[in-house]
Amino acid sequence: MIIVEGWVRVAAEDIETLRPAAQAMAHATKTSEPGCLEYAFATDLFEPGLLRIIERWKDEAALAAHFATPHMAAFNQALGGARITGASIKVYAGEEVRTIMER
Amino acid sequence: MIIVEGWVRVAAEDIETLRPAAQAMAHATKTSEPGCLEYAFATDLFEPGLLRIIERWKDEAALAAHFATPHMAAFNQALGGARITGASIKVYAGEEVRTIMER
Repeated sequence: MIIVEGWVRVAAEDIETLRPAAQAMAHATKTSEPGCLEYAFATDLFEPGLLRIIERWKDEAALAAHFATPHMAAFNQALGGARITGASIKVYAGEEVRTIMER
Repeated sequence: MIIVEGWVRVAAEDIETLRPAAQAMAHATKTSEPGCLEYAFATDLFEPGLLRIIERWKDEAALAAHFATPHMAAFNQALGGARITGASIKVYAGEEVRTIMER
């Protein structure tokens, strides 16, 4: 399994500007990419302009295909219009070990 | 490296109730646990009551120690007061592969 985890720091007002693009991106990813196991955008609880990204993919091929989609190009264009002041997004090779909580 | 990733679904109003407890938890974890590499709470961009949890730890020993801390006990007590309607939090053994974005 591949895990993508990280954040992009933007001006807090830009979160609202990015929201429709993020929603389109998440919707297209979840509905058209079967190798996607999790795909989420979230705003940090203590820093409103910190957009957190959480993804899980079946394998590297699924993630590579994701980068080649038109919805990725559209989202990158939207992100390019935001005032980004920092970012850190990394790829991890991961393996599920156990469940802490499930309800 | 150990990655903890998941979410807890609460009534949207409960996010504000949980915020101080989450802040105390994050602060204590980051300042007193050297094995903690990342510790974040975030609210889903499309579902305000979905509290997302993102953690990275040096190893299983660091995560085990985290579960034995008094700030974990205090946070679990706060969480027990929230109206939880679903949850999924899992542990992954992970290894950093590459950086997608860094600024």
